Amino acid sequence: MSSHASLQDVEVGDIVEVQFDGDKIIGRVMPRTELDPPGLLTLKLSNGYNVGVSLKGVSLKVLKKSEQKHKPIQESEEEEKYSAGEFVSLISTGGTIASRVEYETGAVKPALYAKDLLTLVPELASITKVKTRILMSILSEDMKPSYWTEIAKAVYEEIKSGACGVVVAHGTDTMGYTAAALSFALPKLSVPVVLVGAQRSSDRPSSDAYFNLINAVKFARFADASGVFVCMHSSTSDPTSWILTGTKVRKMHTSARYAFKPINARAVALVNGDIKMLERTKPRGGETVLKAGFSEKCSLIYSYPGLSQRVLEALCADCEGVVFAGTGLGHVPSYLLDSISQLKKRGVLFFMTSQCYFGRVNMNVYTTGRRLLSAGVVPLEDMLPETAYVKLCWCVANFPREKVEEVMRTNLVGEISERTVYEVESYESGLRSAPAA
Amino acid sequence: MSSHASLQDVEVGDIVEVQFDGDKIIGRVMPRTELDPPGLLTLKLSNGYNVGVSLKGVSLKVLKKSEQKHKPIQESEEEEKYSAGEFVSLISTGGTIASRVEYETGAVKPALYAKDLLTLVPELASITKVKTRILMSILSEDMKPSYWTEIAKAVYEEIKSGACGVVVAHGTDTMGYTAAALSFALPKLSVPVVLVGAQRSSDRPSSDAYFNLINAVKFARFADASGVFVCMHSSTSDPTSWILTGTKVRKMHTSARYAFKPINARAVALVNGDIKMLERTKPRGGETVLKAGFSEKCSLIYSYPGLSQRVLEALCADCEGVVFAGTGLGHVPSYLLDSISQLKKRGVLFFMTSQCYFGRVNMNVYTTGRRLLSAGVVPLEDMLPETAYVKLCWCVANFPREKVEEVMRTNLVGEISERTVYEVESYESGLRSAPAA
Repeated sequence: MSSHASLQDVEVGDIVEVQFDGDKIIGRVMPRTELDPPGLLTLKLSNGYNVGVSLKGVSLKVLKKSEQKHKPIQESEEEEKYSAGEFVSLISTGGTIASRVEYETGAVKPALYAKDLLTLVPELASITKVKTRILMSILSEDMKPSYWTEIAKAVYEEIKSGACGVVVAHGTDTMGYTAAALSFALPKLSVPVVLVGAQRSSDRPSSDAYFNLINAVKFARFADASGVFVCMHSSTSDPTSWILTGTKVRKMHTSARYAFKPINARAVALVNGDIKMLERTKPRGGETVLKAGFSEKCSLIYSYPGLSQRVLEALCADCEGVVFAGTGLGHVPSYLLDSISQLKKRGVLFFMTSQCYFGRVNMNVYTTGRRLLSAGVVPLEDMLPETAYVKLCWCVANFPREKVEEVMRTNLVGEISERTVYEVESYESGLRSAPAA
Repeated sequence: MSSHASLQDVEVGDIVEVQFDGDKIIGRVMPRTELDPPGLLTLKLSNGYNVGVSLKGVSLKVLKKSEQKHKPIQESEEEEKYSAGEFVSLISTGGTIASRVEYETGAVKPALYAKDLLTLVPELASITKVKTRILMSILSEDMKPSYWTEIAKAVYEEIKSGACGVVVAHGTDTMGYTAAALSFALPKLSVPVVLVGAQRSSDRPSSDAYFNLINAVKFARFADASGVFVCMHSSTSDPTSWILTGTKVRKMHTSARYAFKPINARAVALVNGDIKMLERTKPRGGETVLKAGFSEKCSLIYSYPGLSQRVLEALCADCEGVVFAGTGLGHVPSYLLDSISQLKKRGVLFFMTSQCYFGRVNMNVYTTGRRLLSAGVVPLEDMLPETAYVKLCWCVANFPREKVEEVMRTNLVGEISERTVYEVESYESGLRSAPAA
């Protein structure tokens, strides 16, 4: 096949020839990743390097269509056969890892064919059989609590259908929130569920999408672990990803490949060729329980000097519960105390975490903290603010009102750590890009 | 002096004897620091170690009152003489570093005599002449934009009266916000202004209050630098503090001594015995300009999945401007776009930073970012969300409305970094507890 093509004809995986100024480049069309400027087509050359080609005023020929036939988004996988316990399910939700150039505008838009990922990463086939499933196609800043339920249900279905591990491709913006949501909505799991994304531009022979996906599938297939994890680059080193606990992970850099850090926890494993377990985790097996549903009537409020009573009351007008990302050991301005007391009496639940992220709240040290405790604000130990917010949405939807505070305070899936002797060490290694292995 | 004393008689710096169960301990009364449990009196023993003594059922004798006479809070400094350029002004605003046990309840309450600090740290006298001034006495979670103005004015007065450097003792909860506020309110400075706090319990021979204060005074007196800085422990090493840029610093741990980290920047200096400059800074000299005033009608909104249109509109009801701590490269849910457009037309200004903290926003990559830009949301590069909020409060109070967006986008005092080749290195060293010196 060789003909002049319009940009709409080009799909990820195609081999194309681009002509400009008498020069030409031949390469395979790569998916977009974050930080690619708009209007750029990224091609993987035969030498392994990627080049970005401006889409303006070039002539484009498709030399060879991708071997993988791309069916529309309703594509059915049903005809394929998967033997229970011998395949990994790859669920796509959208995000950079599953995005393509919107050729009309040059912007990145989620428009995914799950099989693109298989086309671009043929190594996956040598790891295990991968069943792909497109669940939704949105950028992760648009995630909503109701979508968390949909994802949890899809993961549950895949496990019930025999998947020995599930990989969820997800945008990085809110991957931490979704990882927490799946942790609560699937409180018991017999296999690993691994969220994976792409963060970094494809200006290297191997973008992080490529290795993260390989490592996620490898972990999902072979690790003797169960639970919800995030798999993202651990350092600037190309092929190494780490596996992080879903309730203890946060995106800590807008663009670096090693943006995801464990907070008040250590990395569970390193994957690079093989799997190196760093922490004890629950092994495979046991039952898988689905307990989905998330309230959309909870708020996460970041405290700051000047946060007013008016704003707090406006936020709580139609709200079941509030998680504060307070300052330091867990404080909000003491002039908010009266409002909090009154709102609490009207039925709004209040919980405290810290905007420091690292460390533990302790509201017994200072007068303000003690007064907040008296007003009924519940401290959440070393739980991340985002995880606490997700857990509150889940608790409000799944437990009777009078049980919510007790459930929030109880460690269910690793969201609260015991006080450990290596807190300092953990903080240090968590902040570094790679653990001291 | 030796008599049975009630707890109310005991002051920081006194030598006391505590009797319990036939045993006794003699030591000097230390000020409270964070994480001391309530009801505990901390004594420094003659061997240098601190011990905590429960206040319940003990007999207490004051053996020797502190040599420094404690005058009531209205104490006047006017009788003392300070030669211009030869003294450091120590302004206290409250916080742990300036707190004492509230003996009645055992809780930490700010109740400071500035000279306590001099009594407890006699080494200060050997560094330079220190003029103390009590400006306010509040825990820092209660800081408000109007207090930032008061502190800035006091710093300005001290410099005008001849101080060759100013140290501001401050609670750690919101020290980062105040450091940013002073940076904008004193946009030109002839000397260093150093914020210092205490973070860590006094369960060691030397609490961080002690060394941080010595290092802050040393830097304020001798460093050939001007601007606003934070001086806090750089690592677990006792006597070392680092000096961080006031607009690029964040409290990243609830309780560790090295909680303060430079974000998208490197530490300016290390102080340990002597001063080791790590980064170029503006030298001393030139004029000092005061441009104080902070609006109380701005908001900092943390984005999360489920943040509703209703909440956004409630927040903006009586608001001049909003700083978003968006996800990733600078996003909020796209279903908020219509509200933002309408609020913008009604006069609310919108700015974008990232809740990742590290890295830079880039709203040109994705559709959502581009649509937010079209709606008039202004991206703020690598500015911290907290710094951006403080700057917005300041801009709204000090510039005509039509200039605010331009001023927000312009780097004034280091709040926006140029894109640097060592971004990765900076991120890494910023996250470690001490820079690779």
